[in-house]
Amino acid sequence: MSKSSKSTNVVWHESTITRAEREAMHKHKGAIIWFTGLSGSGKSTLSHAVEDILHKKGCSTIVLDGDNIRHGLNGDLGFSDDDRVENIRRIGEVAKLFVEAGVIVLTAFISPFRTDRDRVRGLVTPGDFIEVFCDASLDICEQRDPKGMYKKARAGVIKEFTGISSPYEAPEHAELVIDTGAADLATCAKLVDSYLKQHHIVHR
Amino acid sequence: MSKSSKSTNVVWHESTITRAEREAMHKHKGAIIWFTGLSGSGKSTLSHAVEDILHKKGCSTIVLDGDNIRHGLNGDLGFSDDDRVENIRRIGEVAKLFVEAGVIVLTAFISPFRTDRDRVRGLVTPGDFIEVFCDASLDICEQRDPKGMYKKARAGVIKEFTGISSPYEAPEHAELVIDTGAADLATCAKLVDSYLKQHHIVHR
Repeated sequence: MSKSSKSTNVVWHESTITRAEREAMHKHKGAIIWFTGLSGSGKSTLSHAVEDILHKKGCSTIVLDGDNIRHGLNGDLGFSDDDRVENIRRIGEVAKLFVEAGVIVLTAFISPFRTDRDRVRGLVTPGDFIEVFCDASLDICEQRDPKGMYKKARAGVIKEFTGISSPYEAPEHAELVIDTGAADLATCAKLVDSYLKQHHIVHR
Repeated sequence: MSKSSKSTNVVWHESTITRAEREAMHKHKGAIIWFTGLSGSGKSTLSHAVEDILHKKGCSTIVLDGDNIRHGLNGDLGFSDDDRVENIRRIGEVAKLFVEAGVIVLTAFISPFRTDRDRVRGLVTPGDFIEVFCDASLDICEQRDPKGMYKKARAGVIKEFTGISSPYEAPEHAELVIDTGAADLATCAKLVDSYLKQHHIVHR
């Protein structure tokens, strides 16, 4: 290692790998697949099923969901209106970084408010944000109630629970609307995969 | 798509791709390469130079620095003590998500406080966090002053500037200490690359 003081005047050239170069290496595009829907509508399960398909094709992927976000990055946030907005904002910004890395990021959050979801859409280039509405009826979600949340919400133990005591604003222009209340998982996952192929996010 | 109400009782099996599976696909491990040092010590330039080497080998990478963090995820934070702690905390949590995705994430932030850096180290498995101290003296950094920040700090225009009016706590157990004040960029970048090979983060 040269210790000459002369070298301190050397201008270090900044080399920057671009998103396009990372995508070329991965052989697919970066994108946000944003699953939205009621609790119990199948967002998390479907996101993992789609990731499974993509991974088997050699795609670089990550799922963001309550498990890795609420206990980590957003562990400081509660469930007030402000905190819910901030929760989705941060997830959007992190998702954008993954897109920059050329990764397909699948997010599984209720994200009940249109303005919050549209703000994330606005962070990235058109086409990078794929909104997938997991369209299962409240009846079906409440019947499933995998974590007993609806029961608690009906009993008033949980306040402001989406669908019960807080509104869910269904997407008006989702890229995909999937009947996760009736269709089987493999069928739902294939719909997302087909969309990604049709829109040249993945190439096979 | 089956619309039979019977299928609403089907339990959707949760498939989850693991970090190890993503790493196997990428053919390298995920890791955080955490560059720390004074303003002007070469953190950002070095991180991009290392990314360049890794990308050419086919590694999946991303650089987190002021450009993509301060204007995005941490755009709501100022420069108070609390906000500086929160800034590094969030960067650490995001870096952890990239490790989970099997990506090599290079971070370039002054990150002057030992406790903040050590908290990030504690978020991940030993070996996943590689602290690289960009060890250029204050004299050299101030001489370089690429953005005119030291001049403003000396004039009192910028308050609490690291090295001038706020302390920089040098790492005590950094994985790498690099003399970015004297050595040329290619030499510095190779030191990091060699470390990654020796520690089996990358395999060639």
